[in-house]
This record gives sequence, structure tokens and C-alpha cells, in this order.
Amino acid sequence: MRIGIIGVGTVGASVANILRDNKNVITARAGCEIIPAIGVVSNLNKKRDVEIELTDDVEKVLNDESIDVIVELMGGIEKPYEIIKKALKNGKAVVTANKALLAYHRYELQEIAGDTAFEYEAAVAGGIPIINALRDGLTANHIESIRGIMNGTCNYMLTKMINEGVDYETILKEAQELGYAEADPTFDVGGFDAAHKLLILGSIAYGIDAKPEDILIEGIQNISHEDIDFANEFNYSIKLLTIAKKVGKEIELRVHPSLIPTTEMISKVDGVMNGVSVVGDKVGETMYYGAGAGGDATASAVIANIIDIARRGKGSPMLGFEKPHGEDIRLMSKDDIRTKYYLRFRVEDKAGVLAKIATILGERNISIEKMIQKPLNRTCSHILLSTHTSVEKDIIEALKTIEEAGVVTAKPAMIRIED
Amino acid sequence: MRIGIIGVGTVGASVANILRDNKNVITARAGCEIIPAIGVVSNLNKKRDVEIELTDDVEKVLNDESIDVIVELMGGIEKPYEIIKKALKNGKAVVTANKALLAYHRYELQEIAGDTAFEYEAAVAGGIPIINALRDGLTANHIESIRGIMNGTCNYMLTKMINEGVDYETILKEAQELGYAEADPTFDVGGFDAAHKLLILGSIAYGIDAKPEDILIEGIQNISHEDIDFANEFNYSIKLLTIAKKVGKEIELRVHPSLIPTTEMISKVDGVMNGVSVVGDKVGETMYYGAGAGGDATASAVIANIIDIARRGKGSPMLGFEKPHGEDIRLMSKDDIRTKYYLRFRVEDKAGVLAKIATILGERNISIEKMIQKPLNRTCSHILLSTHTSVEKDIIEALKTIEEAGVVTAKPAMIRIED
Repeated sequence: MRIGIIGVGTVGASVANILRDNKNVITARAGCEIIPAIGVVSNLNKKRDVEIELTDDVEKVLNDESIDVIVELMGGIEKPYEIIKKALKNGKAVVTANKALLAYHRYELQEIAGDTAFEYEAAVAGGIPIINALRDGLTANHIESIRGIMNGTCNYMLTKMINEGVDYETILKEAQELGYAEADPTFDVGGFDAAHKLLILGSIAYGIDAKPEDILIEGIQNISHEDIDFANEFNYSIKLLTIAKKVGKEIELRVHPSLIPTTEMISKVDGVMNGVSVVGDKVGETMYYGAGAGGDATASAVIANIIDIARRGKGSPMLGFEKPHGEDIRLMSKDDIRTKYYLRFRVEDKAGVLAKIATILGERNISIEKMIQKPLNRTCSHILLSTHTSVEKDIIEALKTIEEAGVVTAKPAMIRIED
Repeated sequence: MRIGIIGVGTVGASVANILRDNKNVITARAGCEIIPAIGVVSNLNKKRDVEIELTDDVEKVLNDESIDVIVELMGGIEKPYEIIKKALKNGKAVVTANKALLAYHRYELQEIAGDTAFEYEAAVAGGIPIINALRDGLTANHIESIRGIMNGTCNYMLTKMINEGVDYETILKEAQELGYAEADPTFDVGGFDAAHKLLILGSIAYGIDAKPEDILIEGIQNISHEDIDFANEFNYSIKLLTIAKKVGKEIELRVHPSLIPTTEMISKVDGVMNGVSVVGDKVGETMYYGAGAGGDATASAVIANIIDIARRGKGSPMLGFEKPHGEDIRLMSKDDIRTKYYLRFRVEDKAGVLAKIATILGERNISIEKMIQKPLNRTCSHILLSTHTSVEKDIIEALKTIEEAGVVTAKPAMIRIED
């Protein structure tokens, strides 16, 4: 089986090199040799750590009848979309690691692929075979929830913040120096990368079509050391969680920093590692843990897909369902999310402030579970509290009202609690 | 697709009932309806919590041309082996949860099955899709090691012992009362159940054929509270680990209690839960966590296999390799295992005892990493120590020599350390 690799960066080079280095075991598992026949790059003059033939002519590869599988690793959205459509039209199987592409075009691609294999294990949580587990391993279950730690940059930063008390700006700089974060880190720290992955898992679990702009996405930029202290004091971990949850006929899809009890297995996923916890109605909780990024780990998932295709052509339905599965499901409005909340208010030390805050919360049926007040300086304090289960809309309104009432000296902070 | 269930106990009933309860989502995923058409039981008079038709005539079901898949859940070895052979001969796909059968007959069954689907996800770690992950998700990798916690009974008992200081006999009685342990607990606490599962994973990872009697199997019966104290003091967890490891051309397969640093993810798998850590040469460590037993969790895996068969017939090679993969691998002799060891000696408080022990160890190139001596009563002490990496044969000999030299007042204890 001959493959063409579109985009020979870190992951593409790893794919070619692993197919060379682990050829014996891969051939024995696949039942045939898998040959990285050609790579497509935009700049042929750039030195690359691969031995395969390179070209800058993508059309040539797409029209080469000796190529059986196209591996798309170029990144971007519209350009790879066109290339993949053409590859599928030419009857070539496709493997991609491109989560942004799938976040926007997965249903069109499923339609276009039809009976041609289209696989994307590497698009979610890198080397962890989570697509495999969710799409093939847990199919007997109604999925009750998915909670994922799927952005290694954020998890590295949050782990350092909570374990070592480092502040956000310092750790961001360190992550950039280590190559864990980009010069413009927004895509990672803003939660968008994780959201793309969540949308893919949401489709497999629930057959739900949604785009990034439809769902709640919050990043980790506003986590302060007071929040970290609260988390440590009450045995919470702070993670950027991707959450998919079924509540009746509605599906919640959201990405945001979350407080998780340290007793939960997923809270133990630290550093750059990824973890995904899936709760099925029959199997209970299962969890999947491993490297979410890196050339070799990502290539491991890409090659597993190529071997799948060698073994059986198209296996399971691309997005898990043969056709929309008929249950009348819909995306839950952000306003209707119900969870527990941690709130932080910076207030002046004067009589009546706490009463005012408590009153505003109480009027919106927000009841307080735990509260601590800590002096900040001679004139100011922090009020940190957690609520019982409340409705997102009520929380947002209450925070706005509290801010407008002039009882706080800074914008209130809020982190959702998932337990 | 119509299935016949041979053995309608807890798991068999769950399979039938989940196919009924989750029919909509299963049909949408499988692309066809999966009908639990008939169950085979030995006693038709026993009341069972299922709605399906029952018979005590297994031949009738095996010869029924309307049955597409046989699900074997009867247990035992030789009887299900004969039934499955007949089912395969009649062209029926087979799904089993029977680990003992596979521990002995997996290679014959792979041969007999040929192009007919034969699946067994539920045989290892219950509801965790570990066969799926290892056989299909990590195929790009040379597997460096597998470390599994795959017996919930042992893990429940060890967790209680280490967290609550309960002794072995007390916790065994409790586990029996809770239904986690059998009246004769040997199969679980002796490590045999875990060994059956390990042999299956060993085949998928390395293509190695071995039987339970070929490998090192030790149970948890001799773990004492002194060992627990040592573990707690030096930040180890104690787990019954199943270990498969590649060292050059040799494969280690072993099951025994192990001390694992509490910093490792696998050490956090507590209570009745199962966890399997797999290290691939490219992907690094991945870990899989979930319920290893229970009717619904096990049935979740059985049904996932049935859906696989509905989707694609035979998918991957049953044991992961199209044919023996050609690398000249062999099972490592138990004597040659190299790891770190924890040793416990009960000694009389008199001059020269420690020197004698240290000398015997030193003569066999066993060097001591950490040591503590604790008084036991007015005349006796415990010497607890951990070694640097040593050779199993040397350890066994040293312990024998120490015992024979009359410097200990009880049989020395040993637990292997895996870090």
C-alpha cells in the first residue's frame, strides 16, 4: 500500500520515519507493506529529516493512480478541504490529523467519503486512541458525558500554576520558551484547539452537528493565584475541560477552566499529558490517558489509521453513526447550563457588602455552599465562594448586577465546578 | 442480525437487556438491528431476568441458520471450546468473554476462525476497550511494556489494606461478603485470573504463545502489614500487576504483587477498578481505566464486538498479527527477570545478623538502595530493604541462603518493585 503525505513537517516526517523504522512489525500487523511513497511540501529547498521523495506538486500526487492513501498533515481549513475532496473523488482513502478542518467540515466530508475510508484518530488527543474507543469500543452505551483534558499547553501551564504557585504570565513565557506554546498562544490558551476536538467527539457520541461558534468556549487567561489558592484549599484541581454531556434531549458542549475534585481520576492528568473520561450508561466511567501532541505520538495515531485501512478498508462509519441516529437531540443553549460555580469578588472592607452580594445571589436562586473572605490589603478583601448547582443565565445576570451595584472593586471572576 | 447467547447468567442477561434497552442507539451505530434471538441455559426452571426465548438445546442453536453470531458466556474451557469450534465450522461469528479458554486455546481458535469474525474484548479488563486499543490503536508501535491492574478483587483488597491498614484475612472476608471474592478465592487472589488476561495481551503485543504454566504467577496472599507500612513510608502503592515487557528478543510475562511509585498514573487505579498502562516506542505511555467486571460493563464490551461484526465482519486479525510476525522472540526464563526488589527479614536482635545478610546479598551482586530496621518485640526486629536492579535468580538464591544460614526467624518476604 502506497501513501502520499501532504505536509512534511514534524508529524509528516515522523509518519515517514516510523513506517521505515518499525516496518517489520507494521507489515506483520497490516498484512502488507505500507510504503511512504511521496511527500508534498511547499518549499522543496527546506532541509527535512526524511528519506522519502518530495514534490511541491500536490495535483501530481492526487492524480497518481499508484497512491492508495492520502495523509493530510498540512493544516489550515479550506485548502486541505479541497485537496481531500479531490483525493476522495479519485477513490483514495484519506487519513488526517486536522481538527480544525473536522470542526467545520466533518459532516460534509462524511457525505463525500461515502464508502471510502476516511480516518482521523490523530485529530483528537494525539496518540491516545480515543476515536477508536468512543466510536468502536463503547458503542453499546448511551454516552452520559465526556470530560477531556485535550490541550497539553493549557494543562502544562495549569499544573505548574497549581503545583508551584507560578503566575499565568510567567508560566506562559516558560511554555513559549519550551515550545509548548506558540508566539501567539490564543488558539491554545483561549480554548479553541480543545473546542475543535470536543466537536469531533460530540459527533461520535451524540451525532450532533455544531460549529465552534455555536458553543461556549472560555480560555485560561484569567485564572489568578487567588483561584489557585482556593482550589488547593478545598482539594480541587484546575483543568481546561472539554465537556459533552447529555441532559434529556439536550447536549451540552463547552470548553472552559473547571475545578475538579482531586479524588477524580481525570484530575490526576498533569503536565502536557492528555486524558479523556467517558461515562457510558452501561460501562460506567472509562478513562484514556497519554500524550496529546508531539511528532511521534501523533504519527502513531496516523499510522494506526493507515493500518486499519490496509486491514479492512472502511471500518466503522466515519462519525460513528451510519446515519443521524434519529433521537430528537439538540444543542443546549449556553444560558441553560446547570453546574456548580466558584465565584471571586474583590470588595471594599465596609459594612453591608457581603449582605448585598448574598442578596443578589439569593434573588436568583443561587445558594452558597462554601465561602471564605480573605483580606487583600488595608482596605480591600476577596470573597471566594462556591455555589450549589445553579443555572448559567442566573449566574451571569447576578455577576452583572453585582458589578453594576458598585459593591466590587474589580470584575468578578467565575470558574465552573465539575464534580 | 440475530444472536444466540450461550450461558445466560449475569453477563448474558445484561447482553440481552442492553440490546433491548439501548436498541435505538445500537441500531443507529451498527447500521442494522441486533436481535438477541435465543439464550441457551442448562436449567430452564431457574428464574432469570431476561425476556428472550430460552432453550437447553445448544445443538439446536448452533445449527440454526438464522443465527448469525454466537455469544459464548458459559465459562469453563473444554466445553465452550467444542461449542465455539462447531459454531465457527457452521460459519457463525463468535464473541466470547472467556479468558480461560483464550489463555489455553487462542492460537488454535485463530486458526480455526480463519476469515470468520472471532472477538473477545470482554475477556480482558471487562468494559475497558483494551483489546481495541492495543490491537488497533497502537499498531504503529513496538510495545515496550504493558502493566495491568486487571483483577478487581485483588485491587479492592490491596487498596483497603494500604489505605485503611486492614489485614489480609479481614479484607478477604469483607470482599467475600460483598461478592467481590468467591468462596474459594484462589483463582483471583492467586493471580491466575490476571494471568489469563496477560497471556491474551502478550499475544496481541508480541505474537507470543504461552500458557499459564509457562509464566511467573504469584498472588497477594502473603502481603503483610509490615510490607504495607514500608510501601506507605517510601511512597509506593502495592498492586497485583500483570507485566509484559520486551527486553531485546525476550518477552517477560509475569503476574505478582508489585510496589509502584505513587507518582505513576497506574498507581492511582484504586478499589475494584482496572487500569492498563501500555508503553509504545513511538506513542510513549498510554493508559486505559475503567470497570473490569460487572454484568453491564462486561456486556458493554461484548456488544461492542457484536456491533463491530455487524459493521465490518472480520476486522483486524484476531490476535493482532496476520501471521506470526517473524521476529525471533521467545519467552524469558523466570530466572532472568531483572527488576528491583523489596525484601523483608525477621531477625533476632543480635550482633552480626545484618552483616551476614548484607554479605550474602553482596556476594550475589545485589546492592541495597534503602534499608530500615524496626524492632518487633524485645528479641526480634524486621529488616526491610529495597535493592537496585538485580537478577531474579540471584535474589531467589540469596533468600534461600539467608534462610538456611539460620539468621532469620521466619521465611523472608519479597515483593518486586516496578518503577
